[in-house]
Amino acid sequence: MNLDLLFRGITVLTMDDARPLLRDAYLGIEGRKIVWLDTKAPEGTAARTLDAPHFVLMPGLFNTHTHLGMSVLRGYADDYELDTWLRQYIWPAEAKLTPEAILAADALSLAEGIASGTVSFTDMYFHEPKMAELCLQAGCMANLCNAFMCLTDEYDPNTDRAFQELQVLTRDYHNADGRIKADVGVHGEYTSFPAVWELAAGFAKEHGLNVHLHLSETKREHDACVAKYGMTPAALFEKYGLFDTRTTAAHCVHVTDEDVEILAARGVTAVHDPGSNLKLASGVQRTEYLIKKGVNVSLATDSACAINTNELFYDLKLAAILHKGIQLDPALLPAAETLKLATRNGAYAQSREKESGMLRVGMDADLIAIDFDKPHLIPCHDVASSVVYSARPSDVALTMCKGKILYENGEWKTLDIERIKYDMLHVALPCVTG
Amino acid sequence: MNLDLLFRGITVLTMDDARPLLRDAYLGIEGRKIVWLDTKAPEGTAARTLDAPHFVLMPGLFNTHTHLGMSVLRGYADDYELDTWLRQYIWPAEAKLTPEAILAADALSLAEGIASGTVSFTDMYFHEPKMAELCLQAGCMANLCNAFMCLTDEYDPNTDRAFQELQVLTRDYHNADGRIKADVGVHGEYTSFPAVWELAAGFAKEHGLNVHLHLSETKREHDACVAKYGMTPAALFEKYGLFDTRTTAAHCVHVTDEDVEILAARGVTAVHDPGSNLKLASGVQRTEYLIKKGVNVSLATDSACAINTNELFYDLKLAAILHKGIQLDPALLPAAETLKLATRNGAYAQSREKESGMLRVGMDADLIAIDFDKPHLIPCHDVASSVVYSARPSDVALTMCKGKILYENGEWKTLDIERIKYDMLHVALPCVTG
Repeated sequence: MNLDLLFRGITVLTMDDARPLLRDAYLGIEGRKIVWLDTKAPEGTAARTLDAPHFVLMPGLFNTHTHLGMSVLRGYADDYELDTWLRQYIWPAEAKLTPEAILAADALSLAEGIASGTVSFTDMYFHEPKMAELCLQAGCMANLCNAFMCLTDEYDPNTDRAFQELQVLTRDYHNADGRIKADVGVHGEYTSFPAVWELAAGFAKEHGLNVHLHLSETKREHDACVAKYGMTPAALFEKYGLFDTRTTAAHCVHVTDEDVEILAARGVTAVHDPGSNLKLASGVQRTEYLIKKGVNVSLATDSACAINTNELFYDLKLAAILHKGIQLDPALLPAAETLKLATRNGAYAQSREKESGMLRVGMDADLIAIDFDKPHLIPCHDVASSVVYSARPSDVALTMCKGKILYENGEWKTLDIERIKYDMLHVALPCVTG
Repeated sequence: MNLDLLFRGITVLTMDDARPLLRDAYLGIEGRKIVWLDTKAPEGTAARTLDAPHFVLMPGLFNTHTHLGMSVLRGYADDYELDTWLRQYIWPAEAKLTPEAILAADALSLAEGIASGTVSFTDMYFHEPKMAELCLQAGCMANLCNAFMCLTDEYDPNTDRAFQELQVLTRDYHNADGRIKADVGVHGEYTSFPAVWELAAGFAKEHGLNVHLHLSETKREHDACVAKYGMTPAALFEKYGLFDTRTTAAHCVHVTDEDVEILAARGVTAVHDPGSNLKLASGVQRTEYLIKKGVNVSLATDSACAINTNELFYDLKLAAILHKGIQLDPALLPAAETLKLATRNGAYAQSREKESGMLRVGMDADLIAIDFDKPHLIPCHDVASSVVYSARPSDVALTMCKGKILYENGEWKTLDIERIKYDMLHVALPCVTG
């Protein structure tokens, strides 16, 4: 073997049911791929060998619902009633954001996510072709969409920026470098109407794209949909074909039992955003019920405007403890099961499950190393427990995507962090405060 | 002025209502005290000047309910049903812990807490006189107790180790170096009986000590108490004099409206342990109701055996978002209010409010510096929001107690961290796994 990188003496949390945990193991990478994973040493040479007995290697994290360009509004208007928050603060501030401001916020959010172990994002916001360029530069994966949204009665695709961006993403970036995918975005049933959904579903089918949308986030929007259409948002979207390709539905807090059956039957991923749902007072997703009924549940932060960070460790632990406390059952969502939400299930949501989301020979090297030589990770009785309940974003010592190191020992390898921080403060921030 | 240390150009989140936030400010320390705090520079000299425009200084955190010696069981038995967890795992493992093992776990937990901004602990466990020595060496503050617990019908104080430790703590360590306080510990109403409570209350009154106890953590224990005594745990403890000195009651998840009136009237602090209560499926404290009714609510992690870490930032954010999501009101527990739980209210719980818990001239220099020059803390629209919703334990750049620096830039100044990690792995851990 002619390895580019060999990890030696490591613990590997593979997320592969065939052999979940390896200790004192070797993981070898050639190009983009994992080509060796065993407790035996590979034969041959390695350009770089990393002896790291204190490292736990695991699949990189999938943050499957973000609005990264909103990070310039992190902490801008916390603790307000929802209507005040949106109408008096968020919408007016968003209206002032220039493309450059959004790009600056995108870059900082990617840097933040990558440094905390995220290898792939599902992002829904504006100016997504520029985001695609940024992700290619950063070296991470991303499913990107500027979501359809039309608050008037008539929709003209020729003047809709979201449709234009979708066309550009599909033509120029879909599958670019195995990292970027164009998703068809639909903001929500309460912000558009049947003609838009038919167009979106048709485009997704024609081009073989995934769909990304918000679904039953708040009780108010869910109930209003039932009042208006006589159907739940999930039933409505299914009727108009939005579940005909693979769909990722963010939130799903107020879905009914019948909705859950639809999601399970149609292979729709329900994204769990526990921190955002709590902070914005949307409620608590019935995650354990969704899982029990066979729905693929993935994990996400939502925007930093909602939950104030772009790192997944907080929500990972929150997902694992919240349902125990609400349902009064300490056995719900055990650590190893919860980890699937942030890894394998996220890869499925993004249609990347064949090459990513677990560590196995032949899969892409999309992985992170967590440094366990920290007081708060000692002792370690159970690796999955330690990752979920004790690890922090700052314990990520290395983030790799497709065999490329994006972050190592506090340094971003593909992004100029000082420039990014400068742009956030001097390009993006003045749009809001100036 | 002849300062030992001058912070220059800093932002100060004082937690002092008179002037909550100062920007581009100076904070001067002489000996144990804050002697200067203003946007003007002090006159005179400083032995050390720290120019830190990216630092936010705030009071150090108070972790007001811990069992630090249990950290050796961090992640030992997660995700089990409560009875299985206790009877099959935790109690048998605890029975094997030697004094040396507990001391090793204590040391590591203190190191973990100090590095994540905690300046004071309320600890209830075994071998607390040794813990007092350790806290004096570490330089932090602590209210310590080995709690009364008697599962038989007869109690003999002469053979009770908890009573012996209480006497030693009171005689040799109470008020030691202004850092240590002896508390009278009562484990809970379900693990002792009236004669024990009368002894405890009498001792507390005689020596002017605070009381620390568990109260209505689970519905089962609360209901069993009502069935057995015809009174709630709070009413029962009040009757037997345990609220006659200042008392800190951990959990208070299932307290009734009448209980809340008792707690408010008697100045009892209700400790909020949101992470532990969720993970152990105890439920959710009605924190916003307690606060509204005038109860002093402080914050805590509980043991690392329950919630797997000894750092308060996770629970700080959790306290601020959980009640919003459960009560469906995004305006509950705003960031600045939630910060009081971890600072001022904690100082009150420990009877340290005259000298600690806020930054003001004349108060002790019990403070932390948070480094805001991190991607996830940019931009900062509101300092309190950023601390509560975006900051991580790893952002603590400096922890100081009584003017002494305990931790700075990744280094523990009073503790030998390599020795501590070694002892945890080679002294404490073998007790459990060997």
